[in-house]
Amino acid sequence: MKFRISKEAFLDGLQKVQHVVSTRTTLPILSNVLLVASNGRLQFTTTDLDVGITGSVEAQIEREGATTLPAKRLVNIVRELPASEVEVSVDAKNVASIQSGPSFFKIIGLSQDEFPPLPDFGGAKEFRIPQIVLRDGLRKTSYAISTDETRYVLNGIFTSFREGKLTLVATDGRRLAMIENDLEFPASHETDVIIPTKAVQELQRLLGEAGDVLVRLSDSQISFTVGESLLVSKLIEGNYPNYRQVIPGDSTERVPLNREAMLETVRRVSLLSSDKSNSVKLVFGENQIEVTANSPDVGEARESMDVAYTGKAMQIAFNPDFLKAPLQNLDAETVYLDLIDEMSPGVIRIDGSFLYVLMPMRVTGG
Amino acid sequence: MKFRISKEAFLDGLQKVQHVVSTRTTLPILSNVLLVASNGRLQFTTTDLDVGITGSVEAQIEREGATTLPAKRLVNIVRELPASEVEVSVDAKNVASIQSGPSFFKIIGLSQDEFPPLPDFGGAKEFRIPQIVLRDGLRKTSYAISTDETRYVLNGIFTSFREGKLTLVATDGRRLAMIENDLEFPASHETDVIIPTKAVQELQRLLGEAGDVLVRLSDSQISFTVGESLLVSKLIEGNYPNYRQVIPGDSTERVPLNREAMLETVRRVSLLSSDKSNSVKLVFGENQIEVTANSPDVGEARESMDVAYTGKAMQIAFNPDFLKAPLQNLDAETVYLDLIDEMSPGVIRIDGSFLYVLMPMRVTGG
Repeated sequence: MKFRISKEAFLDGLQKVQHVVSTRTTLPILSNVLLVASNGRLQFTTTDLDVGITGSVEAQIEREGATTLPAKRLVNIVRELPASEVEVSVDAKNVASIQSGPSFFKIIGLSQDEFPPLPDFGGAKEFRIPQIVLRDGLRKTSYAISTDETRYVLNGIFTSFREGKLTLVATDGRRLAMIENDLEFPASHETDVIIPTKAVQELQRLLGEAGDVLVRLSDSQISFTVGESLLVSKLIEGNYPNYRQVIPGDSTERVPLNREAMLETVRRVSLLSSDKSNSVKLVFGENQIEVTANSPDVGEARESMDVAYTGKAMQIAFNPDFLKAPLQNLDAETVYLDLIDEMSPGVIRIDGSFLYVLMPMRVTGG
Repeated sequence: MKFRISKEAFLDGLQKVQHVVSTRTTLPILSNVLLVASNGRLQFTTTDLDVGITGSVEAQIEREGATTLPAKRLVNIVRELPASEVEVSVDAKNVASIQSGPSFFKIIGLSQDEFPPLPDFGGAKEFRIPQIVLRDGLRKTSYAISTDETRYVLNGIFTSFREGKLTLVATDGRRLAMIENDLEFPASHETDVIIPTKAVQELQRLLGEAGDVLVRLSDSQISFTVGESLLVSKLIEGNYPNYRQVIPGDSTERVPLNREAMLETVRRVSLLSSDKSNSVKLVFGENQIEVTANSPDVGEARESMDVAYTGKAMQIAFNPDFLKAPLQNLDAETVYLDLIDEMSPGVIRIDGSFLYVLMPMRVTGG
């Protein structure tokens, strides 16, 4: 195996796959990137057995072949190479010689025969989703994924293809984010799956603004084709909770909020949230919200915002991080906070199909 | 106590003293910043009992007074304040009210009576050093300070005022950096002191390019006055090793090196240094150095540099981090590597009074 490649393309190809590399040292091959040189392209593949990713870049192939090399070390080397041209040759013992300007590196690899193949998706269901739709949907929901490993069905995004809609849902039991988009697919393709967090993160790195992503679904696996890149992942098995029953019915109050102003206010006031209660309180009065926090022995914070509110006086407390998360990940200038009463979940909505349900915290005095 | 201040000045004053705040939670007052409002200025002071720092900024004082407030929390609040004008009032119980635009914060402080006073330097020896000279000297030596707490006399910079010279020395036993500068002071002021690492770090933050720093020395303390800021520190007690005997005599070879090119080469090659040996080898041939490293089971790296070398063929190994450190902190285009033989320390020099002694490592095959 022998090829010439630009430093930039080599690094680009490696960086797109490097995050999937396994940290399990019991299987050294999973720390390696599979390199396949053929047909004028160099292909890169990594896998941790749950998630796998592959992509390719142009290269001048002088002798076709394949090998595997330590991924992180290779990235570090290629990043530091002194010249824009790189020449790589790999011998029969998987020892790679890398030459760039005055620099020469010899790296010991492992045979490509040991590298686990990515799963086959022959006969799978196929969906086409505009990249921008999926990217936007993941951004607006993924922050609500649970990180509690004991609740493994919540460690991913519930993805539902039903009734001509793509629905994405993430929840950790205390807040829930959901977004729906119209999508065309055959009725026979209707299904629900849970995409694990790591695959969601990799997918977010791959998705751009233009073109479609091709999604393939087999019984236990999902794949995403984005341009030259292919991401495959196991699906999370298990039953996702019935999230629809978490969404409150009609609200009694709707408060329009300037998203950025609200985010800034909550950020400032939360500096005085106590570690114990970790809450900020929203006190609604006529055409005003006062946001407050207090921390015993430390102090308190409060800030007023003018809002169009003519409902009854009430106060409701939220976890400030959970309140900030959707405000940080939405783009709309105005968001709506829908409330029923002090003990019922609040709902953040925008003009569109997004919603975010947030459990209130117990309101204490002070 | 009551004052108005610009957010920018408030933050600037706090940031200059915030790094000294103690992390010892047994003495809560040491987590606080002492604020003194008088004569149109707001003064900030922090101390961890070893190092203390004080500075001041302009403020519109409406009622003079003093208090102490939690330093890190105050920095976080001031950084986030929404308006450029801040109004602070502190009541008799050391509760501070901070108002800025729509934001209001109440912070519970502690009485200034509990705050330990900075030491007095009446009758101390005084020295004036151009800030640029001290800043440059600290930059070129401080990276060689030992971090081994069992060798406490090496946990600082040896600072010698002798024979019309200011000499700065740092060593960790495996390398030594030294710089000398002419300085005028009375012969009666001749002395040697060891300035601890934390004071060196704070001093580096304070020093600028113009003007002098006023240094005061008492028996066990040192102070530095830089503009409106004053840094005081305990000195390290103990005898600094006789560093002059570490500096090798006449070298047999002098190799001029392009500093940046050498740094880049060592950085690249060291990617293949093994964790165990952690060395790079310099192989000298006619008008060439080959820099090499190898790591068993991983691979090897080598890179050639053209240099003006006509001496005997030889090879010498160094710790790559110790070789890179002076190259990163010098400015000269060309540095000189002076060598005697493969087992003797190498010395990096520049055109000027700086030198860096570096112990070689055992050269192994491969």
